[in-house]
This record gives sequence, structure tokens and C-alpha cells, in this order.
Amino acid sequence: MSSKKKIGVLGASGYTGADAVRLLARHPHAEITTLTANTHAGRAMEDVFPHFFMLDLPKLVEWEKVDWEQLDAVFCGLPHGTTQEIIAAVLKANPAIKVLDMSADFRLRDREVYAKWYGHEHRAPELQGEAVYGLTEFYRKKIASSRLVACPGCYPTASLLALVPLAKAKLIDVHDILIDAKSGVTGAGRGLKQNTLFSEAGEGLSPYSVGTHRHAPEIEQEIGAAAGSAVTVNFTPHLIPMARGELCTCYVRLDGASVDDLRDALSNAYRNEPFVHVAKKGVMPQTQNVRGSNYVQIGVFPDRIKNRAIVISVLDNLVKGSAGQAIQNMNLMFGFPETAGLEQIALFP
Amino acid sequence: MSSKKKIGVLGASGYTGADAVRLLARHPHAEITTLTANTHAGRAMEDVFPHFFMLDLPKLVEWEKVDWEQLDAVFCGLPHGTTQEIIAAVLKANPAIKVLDMSADFRLRDREVYAKWYGHEHRAPELQGEAVYGLTEFYRKKIASSRLVACPGCYPTASLLALVPLAKAKLIDVHDILIDAKSGVTGAGRGLKQNTLFSEAGEGLSPYSVGTHRHAPEIEQEIGAAAGSAVTVNFTPHLIPMARGELCTCYVRLDGASVDDLRDALSNAYRNEPFVHVAKKGVMPQTQNVRGSNYVQIGVFPDRIKNRAIVISVLDNLVKGSAGQAIQNMNLMFGFPETAGLEQIALFP
Amino acid sequence: MSSKKKIGVLGASGYTGADAVRLLARHPHAEITTLTANTHAGRAMEDVFPHFFMLDLPKLVEWEKVDWEQLDAVFCGLPHGTTQEIIAAVLKANPAIKVLDMSADFRLRDREVYAKWYGHEHRAPELQGEAVYGLTEFYRKKIASSRLVACPGCYPTASLLALVPLAKAKLIDVHDILIDAKSGVTGAGRGLKQNTLFSEAGEGLSPYSVGTHRHAPEIEQEIGAAAGSAVTVNFTPHLIPMARGELCTCYVRLDGASVDDLRDALSNAYRNEPFVHVAKKGVMPQTQNVRGSNYVQIGVFPDRIKNRAIVISVLDNLVKGSAGQAIQNMNLMFGFPETAGLEQIALFP
Amino acid sequence: MSSKKKIGVLGASGYTGADAVRLLARHPHAEITTLTANTHAGRAMEDVFPHFFMLDLPKLVEWEKVDWEQLDAVFCGLPHGTTQEIIAAVLKANPAIKVLDMSADFRLRDREVYAKWYGHEHRAPELQGEAVYGLTEFYRKKIASSRLVACPGCYPTASLLALVPLAKAKLIDVHDILIDAKSGVTGAGRGLKQNTLFSEAGEGLSPYSVGTHRHAPEIEQEIGAAAGSAVTVNFTPHLIPMARGELCTCYVRLDGASVDDLRDALSNAYRNEPFVHVAKKGVMPQTQNVRGSNYVQIGVFPDRIKNRAIVISVLDNLVKGSAGQAIQNMNLMFGFPETAGLEQIALFP
Repeated sequence: MSSKKKIGVLGASGYTGADAVRLLARHPHAEITTLTANTHAGRAMEDVFPHFFMLDLPKLVEWEKVDWEQLDAVFCGLPHGTTQEIIAAVLKANPAIKVLDMSADFRLRDREVYAKWYGHEHRAPELQGEAVYGLTEFYRKKIASSRLVACPGCYPTASLLALVPLAKAKLIDVHDILIDAKSGVTGAGRGLKQNTLFSEAGEGLSPYSVGTHRHAPEIEQEIGAAAGSAVTVNFTPHLIPMARGELCTCYVRLDGASVDDLRDALSNAYRNEPFVHVAKKGVMPQTQNVRGSNYVQIGVFPDRIKNRAIVISVLDNLVKGSAGQAIQNMNLMFGFPETAGLEQIALFP
Repeated sequence: MSSKKKIGVLGASGYTGADAVRLLARHPHAEITTLTANTHAGRAMEDVFPHFFMLDLPKLVEWEKVDWEQLDAVFCGLPHGTTQEIIAAVLKANPAIKVLDMSADFRLRDREVYAKWYGHEHRAPELQGEAVYGLTEFYRKKIASSRLVACPGCYPTASLLALVPLAKAKLIDVHDILIDAKSGVTGAGRGLKQNTLFSEAGEGLSPYSVGTHRHAPEIEQEIGAAAGSAVTVNFTPHLIPMARGELCTCYVRLDGASVDDLRDALSNAYRNEPFVHVAKKGVMPQTQNVRGSNYVQIGVFPDRIKNRAIVISVLDNLVKGSAGQAIQNMNLMFGFPETAGLEQIALFP
Repeated sequence: MSSKKKIGVLGASGYTGADAVRLLARHPHAEITTLTANTHAGRAMEDVFPHFFMLDLPKLVEWEKVDWEQLDAVFCGLPHGTTQEIIAAVLKANPAIKVLDMSADFRLRDREVYAKWYGHEHRAPELQGEAVYGLTEFYRKKIASSRLVACPGCYPTASLLALVPLAKAKLIDVHDILIDAKSGVTGAGRGLKQNTLFSEAGEGLSPYSVGTHRHAPEIEQEIGAAAGSAVTVNFTPHLIPMARGELCTCYVRLDGASVDDLRDALSNAYRNEPFVHVAKKGVMPQTQNVRGSNYVQIGVFPDRIKNRAIVISVLDNLVKGSAGQAIQNMNLMFGFPETAGLEQIALFP
Repeated sequence: MSSKKKIGVLGASGYTGADAVRLLARHPHAEITTLTANTHAGRAMEDVFPHFFMLDLPKLVEWEKVDWEQLDAVFCGLPHGTTQEIIAAVLKANPAIKVLDMSADFRLRDREVYAKWYGHEHRAPELQGEAVYGLTEFYRKKIASSRLVACPGCYPTASLLALVPLAKAKLIDVHDILIDAKSGVTGAGRGLKQNTLFSEAGEGLSPYSVGTHRHAPEIEQEIGAAAGSAVTVNFTPHLIPMARGELCTCYVRLDGASVDDLRDALSNAYRNEPFVHVAKKGVMPQTQNVRGSNYVQIGVFPDRIKNRAIVISVLDNLVKGSAGQAIQNMNLMFGFPETAGLEQIALFP
């Protein structure tokens, strides 16, 4: 008899769901026993994602057909909006199940902020209160004892790992933060959109959602919490012709600190972290260094403008920016070694 | 007998030289009669750039072998440092020749700034004084009457077209300008470097020369001139996995002005310009819109931080960022229509 | 008053329609006066293709609203199946109009073959009989005097230019032709399909429609006509992670001839052709050499297997493989110089 | 005390060496204790390959400085030609060491064929005789008992897995095999070459070494051995704009067999193989399905030409095509489970 935890992945036909499957299928303490994808129900997973041809995976089913009591944990890669109602139903059917939500539905703690950015009142407000923000490095203890973790967006993970220790230590002016963010195309999901066609996104570069991206309030929530005051940040994302990877170039104003102070503060904050590395002086983070892995690399650089500095962070949006971090959180929740199933080195080239 | 101007391209084996050839070969008033490339002397151009198989071009020769009196103009795509001595020799041999320099050698007007950033005293200081900065839209009259034009770098062209009219109109704080710049790989030239190999640069994204890129002082020179005071700007370039294209995301602090004021100022500045277009409110510039063309597109967007705005500009680094602008300047110098040979529409997809 | 011909482009929201617009907008003897795109009717062309921001183009309208008598020619970039009925209506309304069809509807001369491969009886059989196959180099005279030209598919253009002169000269065994074809992603059009998303098509390579691609019967029709007997060819297409470009590697069995005989036959066939170049011995055709241009490059190579040879051809699928060849045909039909508007050199890099 | 085998990687600054490091660093029974790279001796591995920042690896040293008696096995990713002498020295110093050679030096069994294709007499002919060809699936027993394994080239691995079972079973005419091969750019190594620059190889496609590629005699050696007679094959490689991945489209003439016979023969041959999968009828292999993994996928398709079929295989050139297969062989040689350290699923997207 297997002592592995029984895992379901909801929304297995999307990229975050698929990357959860990729990692969970080789996890030493996990066993995928349920996969849902309502529009593909009845099909084999390898028909939807042919790179899984070597795995023996359960058929895709509709989420309404799942017996939640047979599962120890679910990873939820569903679209925002519908997720909250489904998770409420799941937790009602099995209050002991662990939920790793990779959607945006439980990330914002403030109901008004949620309603403003997502266009409707939250439909499971009591769970919104219960959910723990799943940025592992900052909420480790709470995550370990929770049953519902709202895994952060990819951009917030990259930005917050670069900025929160600096905000906490009051080394930077939290009211003058500019985040120029660059993301690979998988960040837009597997849905069919004209701007993510190869012929449109390839060999070119475009900003999008300038001033209106829904990851901005999430970043503000956490920097505000770290700084102890409400903040507004600039967050300007750009679509880059690569599939995976995210790089945030954060421009900060120093509050009396030096560039070395910033690097020291980050190095101290992440000294014992298995997945967050602060680059040595002069070493440039690049997304190639983390592709396919759960690692984050952060570098700090002087600005030519006095009293300014540049903090650059990179991660893989589908791993540390989504499925990988969710598994890291699951490891905490079940008491597994935090790195279990996540030690793949970046695939380069 | 042809009444076309006789043109030489020096450094024809590099990307900027080749793009000058691509455009000049179809220019209605120009005829390429000389091509130099010292390391490839004696070879046919189509052996070095096989996409020219359909053209009847002169053989590559060493620049020392050229009879400058037979030429009306030269385009110079040589590396910085050596360019200044070669151009001095060319102008000595034929003082009436028109020189379109695409290198960095004559762009900086201040000798000390030049010496600091390029590591040696200028070797043709009198010509440095004579050279006109070739940003067509701002120096049109001077260019028309000059014989030596220092065509700007690709990044300065993109940044300055976005910022100079705002600095002149005192709409922005010139001491708080941050330019997050993104460039395609051709910007690094055709020389063999590990970081520009397909397997290294592809499917990834990396910042480079953070705080140390030689285009920064050029940007500062021109913004300083526009504002009437010395300035220091942030300029942070990133290498993007695409061959051509450049996008500058400029973060500016407003000096009492509104975002619409900025857009209006730019629209007025470029109302009659054939190649610079200010995008309508809400339209996002993207490099795909200008690939292979001499056009520039600029957009203005509100920042979520109060009193801040974002100005985004795109161009093709080898065309308006180099060879195209050089031809635009040549057209002025010879009294041709400014758009002659430059009306290609962007190649999309 | 303009003496330019008045041109309509039907299906202007697709890639072939857009490339026709890109080229026609700078054509010396053409003027775009009508653009149709039924799903986008009422919108500006630059909202659908933002790289046209610098052009003053007519609004998109529904094809049913067009007054065909106001047009001298139409380019038709509509899906196959519907095209035939629309063209019938156009020619009924204005029998003197010139029609350049870029769809598949009139390419096959045999009604049964058409019905077999396209799944329905032809709906304009009399026009099918009238239409001239628009491979310019082989049907120049017929094209010049016709009013309805069925421009060939991109793969047939590349394959037939490589093979027809060899079949005609009986240098190869026409019953043992294998065409391994590789195409960029624009070949699949602008419609939303999962396999043409950047994240799916990028960084990978896949065969498709093996043994079932509709360009096969078109290739067989023309090689059969050249050889004087019905033939079946192997045609195996592959999707390559690039936007534009097509390369056909044709494996042929020699019928007594040598590899040099093949090269000579092709060189003779295309000696006076403005757009088809036979590469010198040892020179390797590559798609980069023709990107964005109307040129074709063909090379001939020995096979290690005795009595076999390899013929390789490249073109840009949207130009010589579609819109460019259509314009070349239009030039013939109106008596313009055949190269008018088509002399752009390949955009490399 | 670790009971892991002590491993050295020679030529660790190349792509195959690096991929060996990537996989060995997470191998349960291996420990990397030596890394050599003569041109980078003295540097940290993460300075040469920054994506290894999270690993604690030995410094790079010159191969002459290594104490071979401290090692249980070496992986050799050195250029061909020099490899043979170095391996001779290694085996002299430590006759019990296991050598996994990823170069071409010991792949050809016939000395004359070697001399003809590599331009010089073999410099370690006795070892050439001893070496076992490391295509695991066909030489498993010999590999398990050998100390020197010549791991096959990437193209031969892909081609031979597709063809050898068919040749053995006499289902195909071995004198009429055409292999149209497509490879990602890492296949050309990390050396600086103009044609592998991003700006040259991107957005385009080119054949290379047509009729002259050194993997051809290797393929012929093994198909000849399987068929029991000398053969000459067509092998035509193409460079594809992707970093990793290889696809061989093999055109074969049937010797009385049906397409289903071919698929059955391959399915039977690989029924118990952990890494070779024969796709179900109609399923198209694509390189995306195996990227970063040690898996191979093979599909069989009917040709429209009678008595012909198409066999398509895909693999990752740096994994099953090089470092992965070398580790698979090491596992056999040490008696580890054959899949140890090699079960990563393809990274898609």
C-alpha cells in the first residue's frame, strides 16, 4: 500500500495545472489520483498535453464528479472568479483537505480591493479571511498550519522577494517604487488569444496592462504590510518572446542606505532559504538561470542617479511563480522536506 | 550617365553596414560604388551576406584602397575608436565628401566626457567640434548644411524622441528620469560573443551594462541641452530574444503637467514629421509595428503613482536607430526628399 | 487625378491580405481603395494590424457592401470554400475586373480531385475552368490575358519552381519524388489555434498533415502536366518556429542525368527571371535570404546514394508564396513592369 | 561517508558537459568530484554556466592535473580528435575507471572509415577496438560489462532507434533510406560561430553539411550491421531555430511489409524499454514532447507513394542524444537501476 498523499489537480488542461502535474508526477511523497478539466472531460491527459506520453495518469474528469474525501490535497489551476465557489464546495465536502490555490481568488485580503479589481463581490468571503498568502519565504509558519493557501501571482512573487526585506528594514522609500516587469508568453495561459500567437508575439516586444494589471494591488498589499503603511507602486508589465521566465527590474529610492546595505539585507533575509539566491556583486540575474526550476535569483545594482538603486529578480513563472511554489507550500503543510520534488536544476540552454 | 550620387559603405560586413546597403540599393538617387570590409577584402558581398544574392554589388575592398574623390558620400559602420582616424583621412582626401558616421566617435561634444567613457583622448578633436548630432528631428537645419553627421545610437534615438520635447517644454523633472530599455540582439553587432549565440540569448532575458552603458552620456548630453542644465539619467538596458527592435519605457515625474499635456506636447512636436508617430490614447507601441522600417511610435500612459507618467517609444535599431536615420540625413544633405528610399512599411509578422 | 489602378483587398484581416496591403500601399501604379473583413467591418485597418499606423487606408467594410464597378482589381485572401461564390458574384457585377485569388478555390483544374480533397462539389465550375494557375514563371502568357488567376499555394510554388523544369526535361523519375517541406507559422494563418500559440510552436518542431496536406494534389497536377503523366508525390510538411519562410528539401532519383545537369537545367530555365535565382554550386539556400521579399533561391546537391540528388528551394510564404506572386501577376495583367512594387530586398537579420 | 560513485566531467564548459553536470548533480548514486575545462581552469563552474548558481561544484581544473585514481567514472565532452589521446592517458592511469565518451572518437569501428571522415589515422586504435557503441537499447549487455563506451551522436541515436529494428526484421529496403534531419542549435556546440548567433540562426532555417555530415557513416555502420550488408544512406541535416531537440523524418521503401507491420515491429522492439515510446497510430511526434528529457518518441505513417512509409523520431540532442544516454550507460556499468537520475519529464512549454 502506498503511503503517498493522494493529490488532485483541478484545471489540468492549463499551463499551471500541467506544470503541477510535471512536478507532482515525480514527487517522492505524492500520487496524482485525480485530474479535472471540464472542457476535456473523458480524454486522456496525453491527448491534451502530449509530452506526458510516458506517464500513467488518470483520465480527465469534470470537477463535479470528484469524490473529495478520497483526496489529501488539491491544486487548483482554474480561472479566477469560478475558483472561489469550487473551492468552497471542495472544503465543504472534505474539510480536512489541503487546498493549494494557484488562481487569484484568495490573494487579496481586503474585500473592497478585491471587488474593485475583479469586478464583483467575493463569493466566499469567509474563506477569503481564512486563506493564507502563499509566499513561502514570508508566511512559512502560517502556511504550515493552514488548509487553504492562496499562492501568489508570478509577478508578485518576483517583486516581493526583491522588495519586502528592503521595505521591512526601511532601507527604501516605499512610495517611490517602480517595477518594470517582463514576462514570457506562458504567463498569458493556454487560452486562444491573438496576441499570444507565435506570429504575433515572436520577434517583438510589447507592454500591456500598463497601470491596470491585477498583480499591482497584490504587490501593494504585501509591501504595505511590510512597511506598515498603504502604498501605491508602479507596475508595468511587458510581453517578451520567450515561453517561460519573468524578470522584474525594480527601481528604488534609498532612504539613507547604500547599495551594499540593500544587498546585505537581502542576503541576510535569504541566508537559509533553499530556493532564493542573492547574486554576488556584479553578477547579472537572467531568466535562463532559473528556467524550469523553483529557484529565484536576485541582484542589486547602483543607479547613476544619486540615492537610487536597482534590484533585479528572476524566476520561472510556472514554477516558483505558480506550481512549484504551490508544491513547496504543500510540502510544508504535510511536513515533508520543503524541497521535496523541487530540486530540478534550471534547463539551460 | 547616371545622375545618382556615388556612395561608399565602410564596414559593410557588419549589421549596420548591411542595412545601409539594403536600403541604399533601392534608393532612387543613390548608387553604391564602394564597399569596404578589411577582414573580408576581396570577397563578394553575397559571400558575407548571402541575402544580397540578387544584387550586383561591388567587391569588398580595404578602406585604404578607396579613391575618396570618386565618392559623393560615405556611410561609416566601423567600430568606435578606429572610426575617427579613418574619417579624418577620408575628409582630408576629399573635403567635399558627405560623411554619415554610424559609430559613436563623434556623438559626444564634450571631450572630457568622451575620454571618460571611451578610455582615450579623442584623436580628431577638430572634427569632433565640427560634427553635427544626427538626430534628424532636432537638428534638421544643421544637418542639411554639414558634411559630417554623427548619427545617434539606437537607444538615444528612441529615448530622446520620447523625452526631449517634454524636457524642452519643462513638463517633466529632468533629474528623475528612468529609462528601462529593451533591445534585440542585433544591437550587439555581428561579432562573435558567447552571450549572443542563439542557444544563450534565446528563450531568455537579461539586463546588461546596468549603470555603465555608453549610450547614457549621449542621452544626458541631449536632455541636458534641451533642459538647459546638466542631468544624470537612469538607463538600464536589457537583451531581448528578438533580432531587431528596441523599446524604451521611460518613467518620468510630472512638473505640474498632466498625462494629456505630455501627449499633446509630443503630438505637436511631431505633427509634420514623416517618421515619428504619437499613438492615440490607449494604443500600445510595440516593436512589431516598426520592424524593418524607419518609423518610430511613441505612447504616453498614466502611472498609478501620483504625478508620474510613462512614455514608451519603439523603433528598429538598425533602421531609425542606425542606417535608416543616416539615409534620412543624407537625403537632407543632398536636398533629396527626406523620405526617399525610406518608405518601407514594417514587416509584420 | 490619379491614374493608378483602384484595388480592393478582400479578407484584409488575415496575413496574406495584410501582406498584399503592405506591398500594394507602396506600389507605384496601385491605389488601395477598398478593404473588406466581415468580422471587423467598421474598424480601421490599423486597429486590426497596428503596424499600418503610418498609412491612410480605407475602413474595413463587409464584402457585400462593395461597389465592384469602382475597382480595377481585387486580391482575395478569403478562406477556401466561400471564396468561389464571392468571386463569382464579383465577376458577375463587374466582368472586367481582374481577380487575384490567393485561396485554394481555383487551383485544381480537375473537379473530382477538387471534390475529393475539399469535401464538396465546386460551386463555380465554369470559373474553375476559366481560372489560370498563377505560377508566374510557367504561365506568364496565359496570366497576362486572363481576368481570374488562381495564385498557387506557398508549398507548391516552392516545390514546383524546384522540380518542374527537371520533370519537363525528363532528368528525374517523376514517380519517386519526396518533398520534405518546412514552413514558418504564418502559413497557418491568423486564426486562433492552439498549435500556433507562441508557447506551443516555439522552441520545437512538429510534422503535420503527413500524407494528407491539400497542397499535395496541386503539386501533383503541375508535375503531372510537366511530365505528361499522372504522378503521386510524397509531401511531408513540418511546422518550424519562425514566422515567415518556407524551405522544400526535394529528394529526386536521376534518370541518367548528373547533378550538374540538374543545376544547368534550372539555371537555363530561370536565366531571365527577375525573382528566381539558382545558387552557385556549394551555396546553401536558407529562408533568411528571402524573408519579406519576392525572391526564390534554389540549390542542387549530390546525394550519397547513387543516382539520387537533392534540390532545395526557399521563399517567403507570404510574398512569393502568396501576396507577392499575386502582385507579380497583377503587373502582368495590367501591363506594368513585372517587378513593380516587388523589389524589396530580404530583411536580414 | 558517501557511497556514491565519484565522477569527473571532462570538457565541462561545453553544452554536453554541462548537461551531464545538470543530470549528475541530482543523480542518487553519483557525486561530481572533478570538472575540467582547460581554457577556463581555475574558474568556478557558475562563472562559466551561471545557471548552476545553486550547486556546490568543484572548481574547473586542467585535465592534466586530475588524479584519475580518485574517480570511478569520467564523462568526456571534449572535441573529437584530442579525446582519444586523453582517454588513453586516463585509462593508463586508472585501468578500472569507467569512461563514457560523448565525442565521436570511438564510435566508428572501421579504422579506414574513421580516417576518411576525420582526416587522420586513429591515435588509440587498440581502444577503438575495445570501445562499445553506446546505443543502450541495442548494446545493453556489452555496455554493462565494458569500461569504455562510445556514446552515439544525437542524429544516429534518433535515426537508428527508428530504423534498426526495421532493418533487422527485413521490413525495409536498406538501400533506399532517406533521413531528413532537423536539429536545434545546441547541436553545434558552444563554440563561437557566425551561423549560430541569435541574429543569424533565429527566424530562419538552413540545411548544412548536405551529403558530408560525419554522423552519416555512423548511421551506415549500424544499419549495415543490422541488415548484414554495407549500406549508403541519405542523411540531410537542417538547422532549426530552437535550442534543443532533434527530429528525423525517415523515408523508407517497404519490402513487402505494411505500415502497420512497421509500427508493430517497433512496438515489439521497445515494449520493455523505459525511454523509447512508439506513438499510437495518428499521433505525431514533436520535439516539444521530449525537451530536457531522456525520452524518445517514434511514429510511423503511410506515404502517398505506394510501398513507401515515413518513420519519424524525436529526442533531446543533449539528453538521449548525449549526456542522458551516457548516464543511462553508466547506470548499466555500475549496476544501478537504468533509469536512475533520468526520469525528468519533458519541460513543456
